[in-house]
Amino acid sequence: MTTEPIAIFDSGVGGLTVAREVHRALPGEEMVYLGDTARVPYGPKSPRTVRRFAGECVEFLLHFRPKLVIIACNTASSVAMDYLAERVDVPLVGVIEPGAAAAVAATANRRVGVIGTKATVRSGSYELAIKKKADDVETYSNACPLFVPMVEEGRAGGPVVEVVAREYLEPLIGKGIDTLILGCTHYPVLKPVIQEVCGPDVNLVDSAEVVAAKVAEVLAAEGALADVPGTEPRFFVTDVVDDFVEVGRYIWPDMPGTVERVELGVV
Amino acid sequence: MTTEPIAIFDSGVGGLTVAREVHRALPGEEMVYLGDTARVPYGPKSPRTVRRFAGECVEFLLHFRPKLVIIACNTASSVAMDYLAERVDVPLVGVIEPGAAAAVAATANRRVGVIGTKATVRSGSYELAIKKKADDVETYSNACPLFVPMVEEGRAGGPVVEVVAREYLEPLIGKGIDTLILGCTHYPVLKPVIQEVCGPDVNLVDSAEVVAAKVAEVLAAEGALADVPGTEPRFFVTDVVDDFVEVGRYIWPDMPGTVERVELGVV
Repeated sequence: MTTEPIAIFDSGVGGLTVAREVHRALPGEEMVYLGDTARVPYGPKSPRTVRRFAGECVEFLLHFRPKLVIIACNTASSVAMDYLAERVDVPLVGVIEPGAAAAVAATANRRVGVIGTKATVRSGSYELAIKKKADDVETYSNACPLFVPMVEEGRAGGPVVEVVAREYLEPLIGKGIDTLILGCTHYPVLKPVIQEVCGPDVNLVDSAEVVAAKVAEVLAAEGALADVPGTEPRFFVTDVVDDFVEVGRYIWPDMPGTVERVELGVV
Repeated sequence: MTTEPIAIFDSGVGGLTVAREVHRALPGEEMVYLGDTARVPYGPKSPRTVRRFAGECVEFLLHFRPKLVIIACNTASSVAMDYLAERVDVPLVGVIEPGAAAAVAATANRRVGVIGTKATVRSGSYELAIKKKADDVETYSNACPLFVPMVEEGRAGGPVVEVVAREYLEPLIGKGIDTLILGCTHYPVLKPVIQEVCGPDVNLVDSAEVVAAKVAEVLAAEGALADVPGTEPRFFVTDVVDDFVEVGRYIWPDMPGTVERVELGVV
C-alpha cells in the first residue's frame, strides 16, 4: 500500500478523458495532473519543441514523487517517449502502445485506421507499434486538425462536425478498415459522430479506456496499487484555471478535485 | 535616411498578412519578423500568459534596434499594449487603433461588427477604441475560434468554411452592421467567403492594410522612412521553419527573404 500519486501529463485539457477513466478504474489512487494550457496545442508543432515542453512538464510532476507517470497526450507519446524515458526513473505509460495493442486485438480483417494530430500522424508511431505486434495488419492514417479546436469550442456534434468528420474519415473507410484508433485525447468526446460516420461495424479504440486498464495492470504487477478513501485528484495548468474548468466540463462533467495554476519555463 | 528595421511581432504565421502589406507599401524598408510558432495560438489564452509571451518576443526583436515595432497579433494588441509600451522606447503600432479608426470612417449607419479570437473579443478592445473615437457608433462582436485552425489547415473556402462563417456572422448581420472589422491577422485569407456571407454592402476592414498605412504615416512624421534597394525581410520563428513556410504560402504566396529558428523562454 502506498500513497504516492499517479501523475498524468497532457498538453492541455484533452487528457481529462484519460484522467476520468483512470479515476473510474482506480478511484482510491491519488492523482496529480498537469495540463500545459499556456502552450497547447502540441499537435501542429515539431518533435523538438514537443520534447522540450513535455520535458519541462514531466519535471514539474516529478516533484510529487509519483509512482507512475502517464503521458496522456498522443503527440507527446508519439515523439517524446524515448526522450522522457531517459529522464524519468519511474514507470512511464504512454498512449500509443496500449492503443496499438487494443487495435490489433480488435481487428478481424487486419485493416486498422488511425486518426490523430498532424504531429502524431507524421510520426508514424501507431503504424510502427502495430507492425511490431502484428506485421500482417495494414494501417491507414489521417490527421484531423480541426477536431481539437472543435472540442475545445464545445462542439461535440452538429452539422459542421459531421461534415468535417466525413471529410477526414472517408479516405479511411474507403480502405475497408474495421477498427479505428482515436489517436488524440480529445477525440473520445466526438465518439458518437465518429461512430455514426464510420458505421456500426467499425470498432473504435478509445485510448483513455485502454490506458486506464494498462495502468491498473502495471501497478498490480508492481504491487503498487493503493486505495485511499476519499482521495481527490489535483489538477495543475500553465494558463488560467477558469478556461480549463470551462472546457473540462465538456469532457468530464462531474470532475472532482482542485485546479491550480503554475508557471513553467520562466527565465 | 536610416537602415534600422521595422520589427513585426505576431503569435505565429498570421502576421504575414500584415508583413505583406507593409512590404508592399514600403518595399525599401528593412523588416524583421518574429512569429511565436512554438506557443501559437494566443487567442484562447489568458491576458497574463499573452503578456508574458509577447514581452519575451518583443525583447528578442529589440536586439535588432528597430525604429518601430508592429504588434501584428490582434490578441496581443488587445491585452498587452500597455504592458509592452512600458518596456519599449521606440514607437509601437498595434492593430486595434488603426482598425477602429478605419471602421469609424467607413460606417454610414453607425453599426460596426467585430470578429476575432476569444481573447480579443473578451477584452472589448475594439469596442473601447471605437467608443473613444465616436460614441454614436454601436459595436457588436463575435469570437470565431475555428477560423484560425481552418486557415492554418489551408482552407480558404469550401462548404465547411462557409457553414462555419455563416454561423459566426449571422448574429452580427442580424444587428444590421454595415462594416465588419476582421480582428485577427488570419482572417484576410477568408475575405472572399466572409464578403459572400455578409453580402456586398458590408465594408470589410482589413487590419493588415490599415496598419501598413499607419506605419507609413508614423515613419513619415518622424522623417524615418528608408529606401534601401533590394532589401529582403528576415523572418524568425520559435518552432520549425518548414511549417511556417508551408502555411505561410497560403497567406503570402511569393514571400521573399529568409526564415530562421530561434528559441525563447528557455530556462
